[in-house]
Amino acid sequence: MSDHRDEDTARAEALLLAERAEEPTDAPELDEARLERILDAVEARDAATVAAELEPLHAADIADLLEQVSGPQRRALLGLYALEIDGDILSELDESIREEVIDALPREVLAEAVRELDSDDVVDLLEDLEDSDQAFILESLESDDRAAVESAMAWPEYSAGRLMQSETVTAPQDWTVGQTIDHLRAIEWLPDQFYHVILVDERHRPTGHVTLGRVLSSRRDIAMADITEEEFRTVEATEDEAEVAYMFNKYHLISTPVVDPAGRLVGVITIDDAMNVLDEEHEEDILRLSGVVMEASVSDNALTTARLRLPWLVVNLFTASLSAVVITQFEATIEALVVLAALMPIVASTGGIAGTQSLAVAVRSLATRSLTPANASRVVWRELGAGMLNGAGLAVILGLGGWLIFGDLWLGVVLGMAMICNQIVAALGGVLVPLTMNRLGMDPALASGTFVTTLTDVMGFFAFLGFATIFLL
Amino acid sequence: MSDHRDEDTARAEALLLAERAEEPTDAPELDEARLERILDAVEARDAATVAAELEPLHAADIADLLEQVSGPQRRALLGLYALEIDGDILSELDESIREEVIDALPREVLAEAVRELDSDDVVDLLEDLEDSDQAFILESLESDDRAAVESAMAWPEYSAGRLMQSETVTAPQDWTVGQTIDHLRAIEWLPDQFYHVILVDERHRPTGHVTLGRVLSSRRDIAMADITEEEFRTVEATEDEAEVAYMFNKYHLISTPVVDPAGRLVGVITIDDAMNVLDEEHEEDILRLSGVVMEASVSDNALTTARLRLPWLVVNLFTASLSAVVITQFEATIEALVVLAALMPIVASTGGIAGTQSLAVAVRSLATRSLTPANASRVVWRELGAGMLNGAGLAVILGLGGWLIFGDLWLGVVLGMAMICNQIVAALGGVLVPLTMNRLGMDPALASGTFVTTLTDVMGFFAFLGFATIFLL
Repeated sequence: MSDHRDEDTARAEALLLAERAEEPTDAPELDEARLERILDAVEARDAATVAAELEPLHAADIADLLEQVSGPQRRALLGLYALEIDGDILSELDESIREEVIDALPREVLAEAVRELDSDDVVDLLEDLEDSDQAFILESLESDDRAAVESAMAWPEYSAGRLMQSETVTAPQDWTVGQTIDHLRAIEWLPDQFYHVILVDERHRPTGHVTLGRVLSSRRDIAMADITEEEFRTVEATEDEAEVAYMFNKYHLISTPVVDPAGRLVGVITIDDAMNVLDEEHEEDILRLSGVVMEASVSDNALTTARLRLPWLVVNLFTASLSAVVITQFEATIEALVVLAALMPIVASTGGIAGTQSLAVAVRSLATRSLTPANASRVVWRELGAGMLNGAGLAVILGLGGWLIFGDLWLGVVLGMAMICNQIVAALGGVLVPLTMNRLGMDPALASGTFVTTLTDVMGFFAFLGFATIFLL
Repeated sequence: MSDHRDEDTARAEALLLAERAEEPTDAPELDEARLERILDAVEARDAATVAAELEPLHAADIADLLEQVSGPQRRALLGLYALEIDGDILSELDESIREEVIDALPREVLAEAVRELDSDDVVDLLEDLEDSDQAFILESLESDDRAAVESAMAWPEYSAGRLMQSETVTAPQDWTVGQTIDHLRAIEWLPDQFYHVILVDERHRPTGHVTLGRVLSSRRDIAMADITEEEFRTVEATEDEAEVAYMFNKYHLISTPVVDPAGRLVGVITIDDAMNVLDEEHEEDILRLSGVVMEASVSDNALTTARLRLPWLVVNLFTASLSAVVITQFEATIEALVVLAALMPIVASTGGIAGTQSLAVAVRSLATRSLTPANASRVVWRELGAGMLNGAGLAVILGLGGWLIFGDLWLGVVLGMAMICNQIVAALGGVLVPLTMNRLGMDPALASGTFVTTLTDVMGFFAFLGFATIFLL
């Protein structure tokens, strides 16, 4: 405690310095200056400078670089640097350009690159490639690795079996700490990342696991079975990867054994893979909720981008036509009072925002399993209440505004009533549409946005023009 | 390889069994049946059954249970189970009900609960509590722990300093593997989770780290300095936690040392904390993009929900009024041709969807740093191209439809032209609004949705009614 004052001074300095320290790390990063130097060197066809600038970078940064430059720059860069592309870089590449980069590599570079990778990374690479590339990569592997990869590829897409690495670190369940350590020192090859020693029975079924920290800090004569983790969960190889990611996040797992239907250990999934899946799931949610078909990427060109977005736009063209049909029924009303045409979008648009809000909370809650059958009806009632409260608040503002600006009390009343109706429909639609899709086994994020805004548009126009017809004509 | 056929058979079985195996794990879970038994027991005030049902559950499941039941059920449950609430359960609770649960605990239970926790979890708990609860919890801690917590609380909110645990496992940089293992066996207390031994110099500055797997598998006479990881990144305690989570995800880190401005080791951040932050960032993105002020939760009541959503609804009320002002300028046109009032929402709404699509891709790309100054202008051009392509496609459909349904070629032309204009504005607005907010140092997800849909509404009405005034009257 004696250096408390020093610490405080240091911390004050830290706050001042924080502005200066742009990057969280001392390792070299891909900043704008370096990017510019690399692109200059690429333009000058200066392979030595390109290599010197790229050499200290992490594979993830080199992959980012390849994604962010233009197509011609990428091809020029690969022309100068293809021999240095390794397995880690290929693993980090976005799927949208992976095939392009792989096709640009000399075959022997590709073969060498995939030989370095763990089996789960090879599986991840293979999934998006054409058959001829797949066959070439499989042939490049040593026979053990090939068997592991082929075995993983036999599990369904997006399953735990595809996500896992088949390299595991195990010990018979009756070993001591000393036997385990001696064994680990004796074997030639260990996975890059492993966090537990998995105990297995004589049929290779996992019975528990011990953290490496426990192994390290225990005496050699302690039985491994006595220091296993209290929490022990295994995953079926057929389990959906999203389910696995959710489990990792919820239970704070670091690695978990994967078993086949007979309960035998077939691999292990580590948290970095789960984190990756969680990130992809999130991308899917946010894009689908906004009506973008999945797999959109900044490196797509205009044509691909347009193609990925057109489907829901066309759907919306037709759903929006429903609004037109509703409005057409009230042509006489609008003809009598043209100002209604100007005011009706306010009610519709505010309903759209409210529906989107309610929808986002519902989709997110379904994704995190905090919206369940146990509380669904409560959440629906809650939304109804919130819709009524906000409807009332907005009705007062809009109604007063309409009355004051147009000097027509009844116009204000009509605006207010329509607003309340549409806010209630919006709040309920925002939660009922995704709940229904979820119940039907569909992704609740998929196109819910289009449905909900169509609902609020139609209801907004109908309520406003309907009340206007009754009260103003 | 000899049991290849067995494996195939096993896999075929697996696919059949997958349907049956609902849960990814053999550990007890909070399923609907158990939930019902618990709620029945709560209603019957049967504390023994409640305890028996909750006992085998993970803390995260007990926290979920407390979140999902209604307020009265939660209070009744706590009345029966308060003595069993431990630190892990408190850590897992959603912030929206944490204070309520903490206030329901007898003081000695709370004191005992926080004493079990690592310093980072205590900090996380304290952040959302009232001062009196904070003071009580701090007093409950042993003096060492209190000092660690107070020290962490002195770092800015949402900084690495708040996220880290101050408990670290270090070794002098000149030690051997044998010395390290002997030290680990000798010390009384080790953190629950640790993945590296951090090497420090005589001023306690980290100089590298060694994975536990490497320590375990290396001979006792090997120097620790010879087996450090190639990749070594440290984080400044003042660094933003979102920045840290991004770094963990990008570089596949498992744990990373945190340093003060003098470069001295002050703590360590592990991947489970980073995964948590990443998940919260996701939530923030998806909710803000949809116009919900952060911190919304399914356990909020109707009033809280309404309050969190009202601000952007009121903003939208005013921005939507811009559309009304634009339409008012064309009252004479609408009076002459009332069908225009029915058709104008189609153009506006399809623009809104296109803007939302473009926006979602841009916000997500900014969050993952794949949209950078290096490729921003290319992405803007790409959006322009995509907007033109989709605008042209939609214009053909809508224009032909308008012509055929209303038998007026020029009405079709006006619809088509307005659609093209609005699709271009939507595509550009969807990327330029978040890029501008990002440049201004604001969160690009914040209310971008409201701005973009206002833009597409106003442009949709203006282009359609404007062209109609020129070509149809």
